[in-house]
Amino acid sequence: MDFIKGLSQKETVEISDILKGEYSGRKVTLKGAVHTIRDMSEFSFVVLRKQDGLVQCVYEEGTVQGFDIKSLREGSTVEVKGTVNTEERAPNGFEIRLTCIKVLSEPAKDSTMPLAISKWKLNTSLETKLSLRPISLRNVRERAIFKIQEGIVRAFRDFMFSKNFTEVRTPKIVAGNAEGGANVFKLEYFGKKAFLAQSPQFYKQTMVGVYDRVFEAAPVFRAEKHNTTRHINEYTSLDFEMGYIDSFEDIMEMEAAMLHYTFQFLSEEYAKEIKLLGITLPDVTKFPTVRFDEAKQLVSEKYNRKIKNPYDLEPEEEILIGKYFKEEHNSDFVFVTHYPSKKRPFYAMDDPKNSKFTLSFDLLFKGMEVTTGGQRIHSYEELVAKMIARGMDVADFMNYLMIFKHGMPPHGGLGIGLERLTMKLLDEQNVRETTLFPRDVSRLEP
Amino acid sequence: MDFIKGLSQKETVEISDILKGEYSGRKVTLKGAVHTIRDMSEFSFVVLRKQDGLVQCVYEEGTVQGFDIKSLREGSTVEVKGTVNTEERAPNGFEIRLTCIKVLSEPAKDSTMPLAISKWKLNTSLETKLSLRPISLRNVRERAIFKIQEGIVRAFRDFMFSKNFTEVRTPKIVAGNAEGGANVFKLEYFGKKAFLAQSPQFYKQTMVGVYDRVFEAAPVFRAEKHNTTRHINEYTSLDFEMGYIDSFEDIMEMEAAMLHYTFQFLSEEYAKEIKLLGITLPDVTKFPTVRFDEAKQLVSEKYNRKIKNPYDLEPEEEILIGKYFKEEHNSDFVFVTHYPSKKRPFYAMDDPKNSKFTLSFDLLFKGMEVTTGGQRIHSYEELVAKMIARGMDVADFMNYLMIFKHGMPPHGGLGIGLERLTMKLLDEQNVRETTLFPRDVSRLEP
Repeated sequence: MDFIKGLSQKETVEISDILKGEYSGRKVTLKGAVHTIRDMSEFSFVVLRKQDGLVQCVYEEGTVQGFDIKSLREGSTVEVKGTVNTEERAPNGFEIRLTCIKVLSEPAKDSTMPLAISKWKLNTSLETKLSLRPISLRNVRERAIFKIQEGIVRAFRDFMFSKNFTEVRTPKIVAGNAEGGANVFKLEYFGKKAFLAQSPQFYKQTMVGVYDRVFEAAPVFRAEKHNTTRHINEYTSLDFEMGYIDSFEDIMEMEAAMLHYTFQFLSEEYAKEIKLLGITLPDVTKFPTVRFDEAKQLVSEKYNRKIKNPYDLEPEEEILIGKYFKEEHNSDFVFVTHYPSKKRPFYAMDDPKNSKFTLSFDLLFKGMEVTTGGQRIHSYEELVAKMIARGMDVADFMNYLMIFKHGMPPHGGLGIGLERLTMKLLDEQNVRETTLFPRDVSRLEP
Repeated sequence: MDFIKGLSQKETVEISDILKGEYSGRKVTLKGAVHTIRDMSEFSFVVLRKQDGLVQCVYEEGTVQGFDIKSLREGSTVEVKGTVNTEERAPNGFEIRLTCIKVLSEPAKDSTMPLAISKWKLNTSLETKLSLRPISLRNVRERAIFKIQEGIVRAFRDFMFSKNFTEVRTPKIVAGNAEGGANVFKLEYFGKKAFLAQSPQFYKQTMVGVYDRVFEAAPVFRAEKHNTTRHINEYTSLDFEMGYIDSFEDIMEMEAAMLHYTFQFLSEEYAKEIKLLGITLPDVTKFPTVRFDEAKQLVSEKYNRKIKNPYDLEPEEEILIGKYFKEEHNSDFVFVTHYPSKKRPFYAMDDPKNSKFTLSFDLLFKGMEVTTGGQRIHSYEELVAKMIARGMDVADFMNYLMIFKHGMPPHGGLGIGLERLTMKLLDEQNVRETTLFPRDVSRLEP
């Protein structure tokens, strides 16, 4: 009988091992993909791509027994042996003087790279980059983008755990339509009509009745037909929902503290990628807040712009509000509060001082909405009354109403668009740049 | 201008605060839901439900100014003030002698609890429990189940990060059908045909070409029509995929080490829930392995059972293999290796010693498959040849084949069914017990 007893020791090393230890002059074995080969006539550089960076290997004629460098192809994967040599001009400050190369795998016969992935920046259109996503992501700059995105989600979760939030996993196939409207994907579900969840809204509220504070980082689906630089049809929503709030400001404070933690975490744990991408982390010590109607007025006056739609912010207005708070308060962020009730979902709590407005907010980051949140109605009677006033059929929502019938604390929460947050942090111009495999009106592959 | 500057100080305390500090005799403020009220004639117990447990509050006539205990309803949420009193018989060893009760919210007028959620174990059918899921989850035992599940995913991710895996977010709306077969949900996607991802298989392999090692914990969708105690149609898959493996045993070793870490993590971080649910953590220091054909033979001989299907394990056989390894090796786990090529997807690597079998495995936990994994083909030519031999149309898979065309390391990975793993750990008889909001052939709500 054979037994598996956990990880066995491997002789191969990673870049991080070499950077941590006293490896100079020592012989090592490592594995990686052949990122590029540069023939310098006297010798060749073989640059290996590993998960934590690039390794410059030096091949000199005669030092690698039984191996002809001309047979080595970009895209092959190899196991090499060699001596570590300190070399400031090499990535990570060292190179490997090769003594042995073993090819582990090779690309297809006669294939040629469709993109020069070893270039610093891929010199091609977004369209081409996305069509070749499986390959274009092998570029070190491209993959650094999604390491930053990984870091944002890690920090979000770590922070939530530290504040006693419970992580939940809510269903993505649902019977109802939480956010209202027609922007919902339909599904055949064993002869029944089903939908893809536009948000975990009803479920996260349900779970507040169970754990007081919950969060989820998961995909959501919106069948929006507009093909803009800021819309995709499947994205990752960072959601939290918290009970026992004193006011909707508690939610904004939680987000502010979370973002503060997140950018601190990135600066410590993802310093390499931040440097590589040239990211300037924004100041998150204080977030200005402004009422929706005031914000409209402010930019209308300052930028001499007529208010067209009093109930919602146009993208152009969001940009101007962002500009205003950058100019006036040197802030990349601004909380816009008290959105009109008309444009918020039925479950939003109206402001008791003026029921035309809600106790809700959006967070704008460099002029773009990255968060929508607010306090929710917690009274069964109030909720039912608002649904009836909106002409909704209460019978369609019995499972959701169940939680209010049997008691819910005052609560509220928010949803953050991960890809948009990453986009603005990286100053990208299109949300597809920060979406691993974007889904939009015309793109379903790769 | 108002600014949000992170979390403001609150005067309310949590159970964990009281357990950590010197609170005996001190006055505190706390919030919670009224879990149950017990009238003891001289006084009343008001048990509050909080995210981290129950708090026994003692109400005595005359000590709470202006509040009539008869007006308090189960399901209300309250803010109370009182003095902490050490009391061994109370949950967590303390009680609060109330001096003030403020009602924050109330259930609907005339509503009555459909379930006695304050009972230790809900004395009702699974069907009722699931139909009333939003309320039944408020039972402390029920909610402990999903804290354990939270812990499993946390440990999985922590372990993966510690082994240099990158977390990825792959699309759930896809154009192709990775696992083959008819068990796939169809979707109308802007006039195109789309599917819900049965697994992140193609995408996680793609990302091995980018980050060498990747993982994802996310929903997957299977349109399987059988309504069994072990099938649900939407579940959470813990997936990882690793490059540069020496053999498929590297994958089993990684899973063994991960499970070892996970159960250790649970015993430290979720000790309260483990005790509450009476969980015995299984031994994970060594995992027996057995070939598929040998396993069939072993149980056929020992339990006198005829082999009907030589290409797959029937559920009954899995149970017997589990029984065998429990009896013979006192192990709750067994890796069954070398599944027949016929029953594995096209991308599985055949055993070079006998191409009727694959370099693949399932992990059985107490007689049930909780993991499927194995080494994948990494050669473009080999993969295309196998697809053609299976009568597949290569043109349908150009985006997937792209990664092999331009070079992939030897690699493999696995997928773990989170709900099943939780089910077997808790010795539950139905996977719906360990699924937050199960989706099955007849259940789409709540």
